Amino acid sequence: MKKVLILGSTGSIGKNTLNVIRDFPDKFEVAALTSNTRIDLLEIQIDEFKPRIVVVRDEILGKRLRDKIGNKCKVLTGNSGLLEVAANFDYDIFVGAIVGSNGLAPTIEAIKRGKTIALANKETLVVAGELITSLCEKYNSKLIPVDSEHSAIFQCLEGENKASVEKLIITASGGPFLNKNKNTFNEITVEEALNHPNWKMGNKITIDSATLMNKGLEVIEARWLFGMTKDKIDVVVHPQSIIHSMVQFTDGSIKAQLGLPDMKLPIQYALTYPERCKNNFERTNLPKIGNLSFFEPDIEKFECLNLAYSALDAGGTAPCILNAANEIAVDKFLSGKIKFTTIPSFIYKALEKIENHKSPDLVTIYECDRLTREFVSGLN
Amino acid sequence: MKKVLILGSTGSIGKNTLNVIRDFPDKFEVAALTSNTRIDLLEIQIDEFKPRIVVVRDEILGKRLRDKIGNKCKVLTGNSGLLEVAANFDYDIFVGAIVGSNGLAPTIEAIKRGKTIALANKETLVVAGELITSLCEKYNSKLIPVDSEHSAIFQCLEGENKASVEKLIITASGGPFLNKNKNTFNEITVEEALNHPNWKMGNKITIDSATLMNKGLEVIEARWLFGMTKDKIDVVVHPQSIIHSMVQFTDGSIKAQLGLPDMKLPIQYALTYPERCKNNFERTNLPKIGNLSFFEPDIEKFECLNLAYSALDAGGTAPCILNAANEIAVDKFLSGKIKFTTIPSFIYKALEKIENHKSPDLVTIYECDRLTREFVSGLN
Repeated sequence: MKKVLILGSTGSIGKNTLNVIRDFPDKFEVAALTSNTRIDLLEIQIDEFKPRIVVVRDEILGKRLRDKIGNKCKVLTGNSGLLEVAANFDYDIFVGAIVGSNGLAPTIEAIKRGKTIALANKETLVVAGELITSLCEKYNSKLIPVDSEHSAIFQCLEGENKASVEKLIITASGGPFLNKNKNTFNEITVEEALNHPNWKMGNKITIDSATLMNKGLEVIEARWLFGMTKDKIDVVVHPQSIIHSMVQFTDGSIKAQLGLPDMKLPIQYALTYPERCKNNFERTNLPKIGNLSFFEPDIEKFECLNLAYSALDAGGTAPCILNAANEIAVDKFLSGKIKFTTIPSFIYKALEKIENHKSPDLVTIYECDRLTREFVSGLN
Repeated sequence: MKKVLILGSTGSIGKNTLNVIRDFPDKFEVAALTSNTRIDLLEIQIDEFKPRIVVVRDEILGKRLRDKIGNKCKVLTGNSGLLEVAANFDYDIFVGAIVGSNGLAPTIEAIKRGKTIALANKETLVVAGELITSLCEKYNSKLIPVDSEHSAIFQCLEGENKASVEKLIITASGGPFLNKNKNTFNEITVEEALNHPNWKMGNKITIDSATLMNKGLEVIEARWLFGMTKDKIDVVVHPQSIIHSMVQFTDGSIKAQLGLPDMKLPIQYALTYPERCKNNFERTNLPKIGNLSFFEPDIEKFECLNLAYSALDAGGTAPCILNAANEIAVDKFLSGKIKFTTIPSFIYKALEKIENHKSPDLVTIYECDRLTREFVSGLN
């Protein structure tokens, strides 16, 4: 029995992680769950999965839940609660499923204990890739990606020598605006941007998919996860989202991982790795799908992808600035304060304005993150 | 330095094997070459690759070559020459690149010596899969497929547990008659059938691609190579021949191997396995290719594929009968004696007529092969 801690169990990835765990009651038990604010859903999850501890990031809501459920399960609150559970609680697999840079500190605690990290929180590697990967090496902690693209690459690399990798090819659905004229981008509504053609995900990541920033963050994540340089990571638009990503080897051979667009598959793989376990997920029927198509991404149109490559190239805290600026800009777009096309402008301004620090430690990263958020919050 | 014996160096696979070896002069040396009749080309190969021994299957042509080249290189002749080289000569990798069932006996000699077998001769496993795989196990001889489809599956299985395989998905280009109306199949000319859309191969295998018998033989080959039952091997038509085949795992994940249709890639992989070596082969550009399409194979139209599944199901010597009947029928079609549509009819008749023997030894296989050839030769 593997004991699983899910950081962010009430989000999209967290819920799917519990869906997978439900199918394998003899393999996994839920050790701990956490949520920012959704205490109603968290209570339902407590009843079903019986964790011994939960954390609610919002202090007031956390206390409310504690009062309500009595001694069914221990309730901690705040960021300190997240750190406490990650650092001192008993578990085998740490599932990092929080959106944004809040996942960073608890992930580091888990790494320092040599835990297996199933990483869905891409910001962890985007803002602190150098730090995280060196800690993983030092503490012998295994990072297993949960993102479908990185899971695909991870699967394609199994049994292969990393020195034989020529290129990673990350596929992108292209989002809802793949065929939309760039001249009409400033009219894009929040509703249109939230209408992703293939994947059902949280709001923030759905907007990132529409701007292709999601793909940019994935390129940076892949750089650290697989130890590849920027010129060895390509993005190819593949609207059907059936090929989740590919690896091209030095002999010219390409391996791809395919599946229906359902996060349960990469989540299950991350939990059961290195085993594969039989499930009853719908199978991919290629003749029924008929066609898989591929395009070069249009980086004139999707400026965020270009900004991400630039930040990766600049190194240091540039990816942290990119990520923090993007979070604030997306938040402003979602609340109707700025246009879709202003998202890349704000990020560009932040990358110009905020100072870059090379090989940053955690304190430097947090400070850079804070400064960037403050700066972009002040932009109009 | 690995010493390579190429059984059939003047055929399509043999020539491509030498093209690969030419690129890696520090990794491979040619130990021995063989040809049925093409002594002019063999002589050119002797001059370039300096094997210490060659075999010419045709006795008269072999003697002619021996007289001509003097002591440049030892020349043996006949099937006995093939056996002699396979059984007693010094080499590390045995490349089985002869077309037809003549490759069987020398391959067995190589297996008994525990050599690495790079197998392009699919008939070896089709007619004697049970025998060959049990010998490989007994003598600890590694079989590495050279066929692009089986190489793809082999690559996809690297680093995976065989128990996690749910299904092998072999892709088929569909050949030149994929979209041709079945009612016009009896008008197909030899020239039309030899005009394969994607692959440049020998005549016999090109006709097999047009009838889809090639795919049927590959299904049988896969059964033995990967220890899969018939119901776990699917064929999917994929006209672009970019995905060379796939493996579906029990968790629903699919791995595929992709590349341009060029035999040099799987040949190189078989020679360098388990390493991959950098080459300058043209790379696969998916955005440039644009579309990959997939269809269910039409087994009403391509009866040979159905016959192959039936023979696999019947087991014993049925695949041997299928293969021998097909060789004679294709030969008759190529020399203008029968129609394209008569090929499956002759095979069907042979499968009905010739007795099936379970778990056949080599003598039984040869006898079954001989009887079938005799029977089909007599058909009109």
